[in-house]
Amino acid sequence: MSADWFRRRFLPRGPLPAPRPPRPRTSPVPYRRPRFLRGSGSSSGTNDASRRPDARPVRSPVRGRSLPWNAGYAEIINAEKSEFNEDQAACGKLCIRRCEFGVEEDQEWQTLCSEEFLTGHYWALFDGHGGPAAAILAANTLHSCLRRQLEAVVEGMVATQPPMHLSGCCVCPSDPQFVEEKGIRTEDLVIGALESAFQECDEVIGRELEASGQVGGCTALVAVSLKGKLYVANAGDSRAILVRRDEVRPLSSEFTPETERQRIQQLAFIYPELLAGEFTRLEFPRRLKGDDLGQKVLFRDHHMSGWSYKCVEKSDLKYPLIHGQGRQARLLGTLAVSRGLGDHQLRVLDTNIQLKPFLLSVPQVTVLNMDQLEPQEEDVVVMATDGLWDVLSNEQVAWLVRSFLLGNREDPHRFSELAKMLIRSTQGMDDSPIQEGQVSYDDVSVFVIPLHHQGQGHSSR
Amino acid sequence: MSADWFRRRFLPRGPLPAPRPPRPRTSPVPYRRPRFLRGSGSSSGTNDASRRPDARPVRSPVRGRSLPWNAGYAEIINAEKSEFNEDQAACGKLCIRRCEFGVEEDQEWQTLCSEEFLTGHYWALFDGHGGPAAAILAANTLHSCLRRQLEAVVEGMVATQPPMHLSGCCVCPSDPQFVEEKGIRTEDLVIGALESAFQECDEVIGRELEASGQVGGCTALVAVSLKGKLYVANAGDSRAILVRRDEVRPLSSEFTPETERQRIQQLAFIYPELLAGEFTRLEFPRRLKGDDLGQKVLFRDHHMSGWSYKCVEKSDLKYPLIHGQGRQARLLGTLAVSRGLGDHQLRVLDTNIQLKPFLLSVPQVTVLNMDQLEPQEEDVVVMATDGLWDVLSNEQVAWLVRSFLLGNREDPHRFSELAKMLIRSTQGMDDSPIQEGQVSYDDVSVFVIPLHHQGQGHSSR
Repeated sequence: MSADWFRRRFLPRGPLPAPRPPRPRTSPVPYRRPRFLRGSGSSSGTNDASRRPDARPVRSPVRGRSLPWNAGYAEIINAEKSEFNEDQAACGKLCIRRCEFGVEEDQEWQTLCSEEFLTGHYWALFDGHGGPAAAILAANTLHSCLRRQLEAVVEGMVATQPPMHLSGCCVCPSDPQFVEEKGIRTEDLVIGALESAFQECDEVIGRELEASGQVGGCTALVAVSLKGKLYVANAGDSRAILVRRDEVRPLSSEFTPETERQRIQQLAFIYPELLAGEFTRLEFPRRLKGDDLGQKVLFRDHHMSGWSYKCVEKSDLKYPLIHGQGRQARLLGTLAVSRGLGDHQLRVLDTNIQLKPFLLSVPQVTVLNMDQLEPQEEDVVVMATDGLWDVLSNEQVAWLVRSFLLGNREDPHRFSELAKMLIRSTQGMDDSPIQEGQVSYDDVSVFVIPLHHQGQGHSSR
Repeated sequence: MSADWFRRRFLPRGPLPAPRPPRPRTSPVPYRRPRFLRGSGSSSGTNDASRRPDARPVRSPVRGRSLPWNAGYAEIINAEKSEFNEDQAACGKLCIRRCEFGVEEDQEWQTLCSEEFLTGHYWALFDGHGGPAAAILAANTLHSCLRRQLEAVVEGMVATQPPMHLSGCCVCPSDPQFVEEKGIRTEDLVIGALESAFQECDEVIGRELEASGQVGGCTALVAVSLKGKLYVANAGDSRAILVRRDEVRPLSSEFTPETERQRIQQLAFIYPELLAGEFTRLEFPRRLKGDDLGQKVLFRDHHMSGWSYKCVEKSDLKYPLIHGQGRQARLLGTLAVSRGLGDHQLRVLDTNIQLKPFLLSVPQVTVLNMDQLEPQEEDVVVMATDGLWDVLSNEQVAWLVRSFLLGNREDPHRFSELAKMLIRSTQGMDDSPIQEGQVSYDDVSVFVIPLHHQGQGHSSR
């Protein structure tokens, strides 16, 4: 992607073209639930509150179908207000083949060994908006993009330190020293592969949705285990936390119009034409009105962490680029997240103003070194879409996790039961610690990934 | 500042104009040392190693001249390689007058009360480059800019919560609730004032240097005490740390081409014309050469935290936008810092490529709540230019501070003596913990600010 590309794509000269009506060339993306839910109806525990006639069904994999690392999974649909669950999930084994450097003159890379060379595992949650299509495409596609990106650099990953040249040939004798001085580690190649995979997947979704005449976008939260490390990549407002006996550690942070205010305001500063004269990039405590004209009111611009006062002019009365607080904050009055996949066609209602230029598909990646962690029996990673975190804090989830696991040490299905229990807790069922009336009406999906005895035995053939 | 301004200033259409030769209209900024050093020759302790004929003089205020909070200060010049010390320092009382809202129909703000309304203290270090002029102007100017910016919002600062309207009039009854929901606190107004003051000072320096036909820039590290809080604002590579008996806490972080790589690369991505075809924005472990052509080598672009491999093309052989490691890292082969004041005329040697578009004058501000801290006898803030931190780590400085203060409890001049001792430690004198041969040849300036019994009694009339 180049700056020229950005300008051609988002800043056409002359009047803005009308949005092209979607011309379906392929059949629409079919709706589906994750493959590993096949055969499961609603959740079926003996104590299952979901059996109450007023309750929504909690779904989880049928007993006997085990997920990687014996992880637990459960989901619930949004108060059945819509027909579709816009959340999607995926997990599985990640098999990286070795690509070797050809001996031909053209020095092309070739897959000389088609067998798996390095294996890992993959868990992913996608929270869709504007329809389920983007999340379904992401669940179908992202792991393949990641596999491809990892295979492209796998030769560099198996060395102690990534070589300057992927071929391993040393053009300059002090190349290893340059790499060492930059502090480049093999985990940086996995981070780079995750970043590239998210972008590649975003492009695939853009093409597929355009071809099928569909719209929509989704967030993406991915955990990948590889060579003794757990990588958590996040683009959106889902969240992963590590829960241990004495520790609750966030493994991701949320990307919303509020948390990315400065980046978004700065883009509008650089390319004011993206707002088409309809929005103000400045932040005020509330939307301004005529009575505020000429007054000095609190404001923030792109370069400010603090607040100051400015004299209100007429242009400040426009609708704000970022508006609302907390869960209600919206980008261009439209979108609650600032990173994710898809949304290539998304425009502000009844205008030609595009959202996509303000959105990033690149994730933030955190790395958990499992060897250093020495995981204990009850150590888990909890990944969930925002429906869970809207009503439960990290600490409340950690309390539920610890008390459940301590009380269910012998149950081989305890991580699956824990995932279901967490979902039920968002519905005010069981011994939910949430306050009366504070119930999630959003789609909610949860993975519980146990860390004990995992991450060892990572081998390359 | 608007995006149009940025484009007009840095992106002229057509061929780039030749740099205007400076046309001095005013006399050059006269060289000087900080006012509070008047009367001091070199440092004069009985044990003073600076008396050795081969040693450089350590300067500090004469005994009897006390700085705010009885702070200590000392400085040393760069191995006397140049005639001038490019570091500058300033400190003093900060007197904020109250500006009241006029009753006139035009509702203009007026300084109705010329006496001080709120008082604080101010300590600042400036590390100049390309000559001493910018640092001298900053030391002469920044505190006035800050006073002006604080006076413009002081009405909002004295309330428990900043009012939506500076006049205090309530256009909308739920205005306080909007401010509350945004979490806007009075300290955000001080942060905003510091951000604005740095920018205003940068503009003043630009005008003054142009008028006097001089060049140069400087970093700026400022500590401000106000209403029980200590604000540390930093633009550049100086550093402030809090040293307590059981804690060493960084109060600033450095802004260099390395730490701001993604921001700088992104600007070059958006405005490739800023590189005039002479530089590549991509990062590689070392500068590439002809032998690397066609090879797949490690690289990073603006959107990447991780690393990946790319096939080397001819354009990748250009000089890198950011080059070198650690202390040697340079922006456009020229500058070691990415934030600061001045440098309006700075260009890459023998080209017309400007540095200024890549530089930010806005500081990062951290806040130390003195009331919560309950400072003890030996708690101090150490502020110093990079010459100190090049050879001493935070932990080494903390060790020197603790052992010195414990051994000199009764000395009323101990903070001044400590500042001198820290300077001498960079020269391999005294019981310096630095390794043999690892001596600072840069200018070094140090403030030691004791926190005990301070920050209380902050009153507004």
